[in-house]
Amino acid sequence: MPEYRKDPVVRRWVIIATERAKRPHDFSVPKEEKQGGFCPFDYGNEHTTPPEVLAFRPEDTEPNSPGWWVRVVPNKFPAVDPNIEIQKYGHGMYDAMAGFGYHEVIVETPDHNSTFALYDDKQAKEVVWAYVKRYKEIEKDERIKYVLIFRNHGALGGASLPHPHSQIIAIPSIPKRVLEEMNGAKDYYDYKERCVFCDMISQEKIENRRIIEENEHFIAFAPYASRFQFETWIIPKEHSHNFGLISEEQVETFAKILRNSLYRIYKVLDNPPYNFVIHTSPTYEEGKIYYHWHVEIMPRLTRVAGFEWGSGFYINPVPPEDAAKYLKTVEI
Amino acid sequence: MPEYRKDPVVRRWVIIATERAKRPHDFSVPKEEKQGGFCPFDYGNEHTTPPEVLAFRPEDTEPNSPGWWVRVVPNKFPAVDPNIEIQKYGHGMYDAMAGFGYHEVIVETPDHNSTFALYDDKQAKEVVWAYVKRYKEIEKDERIKYVLIFRNHGALGGASLPHPHSQIIAIPSIPKRVLEEMNGAKDYYDYKERCVFCDMISQEKIENRRIIEENEHFIAFAPYASRFQFETWIIPKEHSHNFGLISEEQVETFAKILRNSLYRIYKVLDNPPYNFVIHTSPTYEEGKIYYHWHVEIMPRLTRVAGFEWGSGFYINPVPPEDAAKYLKTVEI
Repeated sequence: MPEYRKDPVVRRWVIIATERAKRPHDFSVPKEEKQGGFCPFDYGNEHTTPPEVLAFRPEDTEPNSPGWWVRVVPNKFPAVDPNIEIQKYGHGMYDAMAGFGYHEVIVETPDHNSTFALYDDKQAKEVVWAYVKRYKEIEKDERIKYVLIFRNHGALGGASLPHPHSQIIAIPSIPKRVLEEMNGAKDYYDYKERCVFCDMISQEKIENRRIIEENEHFIAFAPYASRFQFETWIIPKEHSHNFGLISEEQVETFAKILRNSLYRIYKVLDNPPYNFVIHTSPTYEEGKIYYHWHVEIMPRLTRVAGFEWGSGFYINPVPPEDAAKYLKTVEI
Repeated sequence: MPEYRKDPVVRRWVIIATERAKRPHDFSVPKEEKQGGFCPFDYGNEHTTPPEVLAFRPEDTEPNSPGWWVRVVPNKFPAVDPNIEIQKYGHGMYDAMAGFGYHEVIVETPDHNSTFALYDDKQAKEVVWAYVKRYKEIEKDERIKYVLIFRNHGALGGASLPHPHSQIIAIPSIPKRVLEEMNGAKDYYDYKERCVFCDMISQEKIENRRIIEENEHFIAFAPYASRFQFETWIIPKEHSHNFGLISEEQVETFAKILRNSLYRIYKVLDNPPYNFVIHTSPTYEEGKIYYHWHVEIMPRLTRVAGFEWGSGFYINPVPPEDAAKYLKTVEI
């Protein structure tokens, strides 16, 4: 049974996914993704995944059959399990919690060899719709404290299957990183009576040296204190704290700027591994005035980013002003 | 000039090492380390590095000539520079600081093809002596707030040169991760009136399921809330908050257990990339009663650790109890 465990010093929860334990000779350094061979996300293999929880497909097709253009399924090897009862317990001085939660996979396209950067407007929009629909569905479960939507691209980005997909992990506690962000934003608000992210947007517009793209509702920029080379954030221009509040119109413009940002990175860095994470307030109540949802895209050119995990200390050899300059020139 | 920049939300400092900026086509995904060819850390190439700041060498040899067995030099491409004047300044809403600091390389052995896991007792001890001597020297500079000693192993661990080396970065602010640890340890102390790390040692001894090795002064164990597969911590059994307080006797037993721990990982995981970081209190004054210095070794089998950077949320597929079991069986 998977288990949450809490670090007693910094109080960070980790998931110990005991179900996935292997023998040491099964561990290996990340290699290139396997190409060819069987793929559970291809048309015709729908029966090899758990039954779909959402699919965009023609009305005349059966669930779990081909024809879909976006398909969401529970992860076959989940880190957490929705059928476990929530239960907190001590273990000597340590704290633990049963591994309750949701772990789903959004299969973004039937096209095995595509990637988000290369989707057309419609496909990108449909993927974002799937994010929104699952977000709204899962957050109804009152046991859930946080819904995390993210995408790993490339073996070095942590993707174990090359078929284009994103993931959702929903958990009964708030990740430490989210708490830090909420607290930081709240402190700023308490001091300034303004949203720190709204202030960032103003500052970026005044300077106009780190903005990569702007459309009706969103702005993409290289953050002033970028941890990673070519790090890109996408943020709604109008204050909004929760991803679930995105409007139908915004879904379209968000999908477009997200695809474009990924395409710029794809072109400038030659299809590098990356991760992106949607940062949102934990619920519709919290953070209303001081938090601002956004996406952080982190290209993983890790040669220069070694020990950062352990030290929380980042060295970035590319000034975000330069990154923005290069990314901006890509023709969309 | 390198520059520290502060994230306005979570208040994390990053170094933007502008001097190192390259053109986009110079960026690439981490590959295997280059083998063969010129190495600035080999005997005979001492003139290609900045002049040594410390070397263990026979008395009849000249500085910056062959014969040394450990050699410390300023980094030729430093992230920070000791000749820059400390200066804090605003940039609109953002905060920045001139890139003052020390960035040194500890060349651990003249043997280009060795690695820490394979050193004999004497070599391991001498490397640790170099850590201690440089730590004590640099922390005398009152402008420095934190001395970070770490080792990146393997290209995927962030090592850009294969010749065995560690690094020191000393900076005029305290990394966020260190502050968090100090605060967490202080909260625990305020509540329990005991050191949280001392309590962890007791708990590990009682359970005896995660301990990997123990000697006169140190204990190596897989932490209860391990973020990474086969994560290993080494901690002095007697309470001590600052690495600089290590005794001559302890240097020997610390070097041994560090080498052994790296050797176990080397054997079980077939020489994986890893990082280790020495966690210490910022100064001799702070954290005396509640902090406890230690080393965190993080093997980087990153296939499963993708988006953790961005979310602060970790999934570890190997229970530390299993990791300890495997690591313990390695014959030393």
